[in-house]
Amino acid sequence: MKKIKMALCQMKPLRDKEKSVDKALTMIEESAENGAGLVVLPEIFYHPYELKSIASLADDGKATIDRIREAAARLEIHICAGSIAIRENGKNFNRSYLVGPAGDILLEHSKCHLFDVDFKELRTRESQVFVPGDSLKTVETAIGKIGILICYDIRFPEAARKLALQGAEIILVPAAFNDITGPAHWHITFRARAVENQLYIAAVSPARDIKAAYRAYGHSMAVSPWGDVLSEAGEDEEIIYAELDPEVLSNIRGKLPLLKHRREDIY
Amino acid sequence: MKKIKMALCQMKPLRDKEKSVDKALTMIEESAENGAGLVVLPEIFYHPYELKSIASLADDGKATIDRIREAAARLEIHICAGSIAIRENGKNFNRSYLVGPAGDILLEHSKCHLFDVDFKELRTRESQVFVPGDSLKTVETAIGKIGILICYDIRFPEAARKLALQGAEIILVPAAFNDITGPAHWHITFRARAVENQLYIAAVSPARDIKAAYRAYGHSMAVSPWGDVLSEAGEDEEIIYAELDPEVLSNIRGKLPLLKHRREDIY
Repeated sequence: MKKIKMALCQMKPLRDKEKSVDKALTMIEESAENGAGLVVLPEIFYHPYELKSIASLADDGKATIDRIREAAARLEIHICAGSIAIRENGKNFNRSYLVGPAGDILLEHSKCHLFDVDFKELRTRESQVFVPGDSLKTVETAIGKIGILICYDIRFPEAARKLALQGAEIILVPAAFNDITGPAHWHITFRARAVENQLYIAAVSPARDIKAAYRAYGHSMAVSPWGDVLSEAGEDEEIIYAELDPEVLSNIRGKLPLLKHRREDIY
Repeated sequence: MKKIKMALCQMKPLRDKEKSVDKALTMIEESAENGAGLVVLPEIFYHPYELKSIASLADDGKATIDRIREAAARLEIHICAGSIAIRENGKNFNRSYLVGPAGDILLEHSKCHLFDVDFKELRTRESQVFVPGDSLKTVETAIGKIGILICYDIRFPEAARKLALQGAEIILVPAAFNDITGPAHWHITFRARAVENQLYIAAVSPARDIKAAYRAYGHSMAVSPWGDVLSEAGEDEEIIYAELDPEVLSNIRGKLPLLKHRREDIY
């Protein structure tokens, strides 16, 4: 892992996909100008989180990803392209891409846990629109070993743990909690994952839009391996930054060797 | 599971084991008078948390446990006897007991993860004094399915998860976080375990003693399956209460079926 500045782009998606991607690129450029070597976009960053519309926009992703790849190569940075609805063999996936500074795709992650819930105020069935991914992987990059989860994936400790056991030092999580789950569980869940796995986590939400049917929580944040919130956004569109430091991580793992104290023999 | 009032006894242990047990029994009686059907004591409730002294007090536990059993039978309540240093076949265990209203021992748990850490301000090696337990079990009782973890065990999501998958509705956790780990991780960790497993958690600490070598954090708390802190102690000796309600638990699991959404095929 390398010392690096990470940018979390809490962007407010527009209803026009192309214009949203334009905006994402503008925010990426601003992040890079401010010294970020890793920029992370939110879940479904190019449209408000409405399942039907998202499904209708699903395609092979090439046009969107190519624009991200071009920016990564031009700016010589890593970019996590939030997530994109990808249509593949007649199925839709909620998929994230990590693009490296040569413009190459380093890692893909398709959301593995679909958000099917029945709150009185919010009933949603992601499984009617997406099929889940089937793998949890990490990739060794020039800035550290990185894994990706998407939103609801973070609630399952097994998922982040699997990435940690592969050596993840940073987990990037494009996410869109809401009015109900955000205030109740956003901070606890992301901070606990960082603490128990002793790694950096980027939780990146769309900005909150009070007029939207599904109101994202906002509050994007970078969490340290000790569970500290290094920086946190409000509800509006903004870019926040955090410094990731391999010495902080190894220092914490040295003092409190949680990963070594696991009892694989009894789980 | 049954609707029940739970008492968490944040007692300050004395240096005299017998007198500490006397005090524990007094607090148990007060809890029962106040309507508690389940009373939980802290980790090593009969002596300040000093490893050498605790080791020298280790025995077969019978005298201590018998007094707890007598109280449980007399008051017709469930009691979790915090934890006791048990000497068995030449080895010491940090072990907790759940005693039922007939005075019978319903469940034992020996701490499975030993706290060996190297903070600048706090270096400790539980493994020099204790050997770890080897199992994670639950028991069906008249008030619900209960599991026990002890302190450091809670940091490992696999442990609480294993109890949840056995059907645990309540996890009792005698614990003694400290000056460093308490402020940083006590709330996050216990609340996250409750949220991700959707069950009640009792985190029961000794009262804080600023003159002690190892200063327990205090802040005993009962956490709901939604992660809400139902009641929380300060630093001093006190009993706090919380109502456990099976309807709350099943309602949460119905709306947000986390345990059903686990992807065992990919972990």
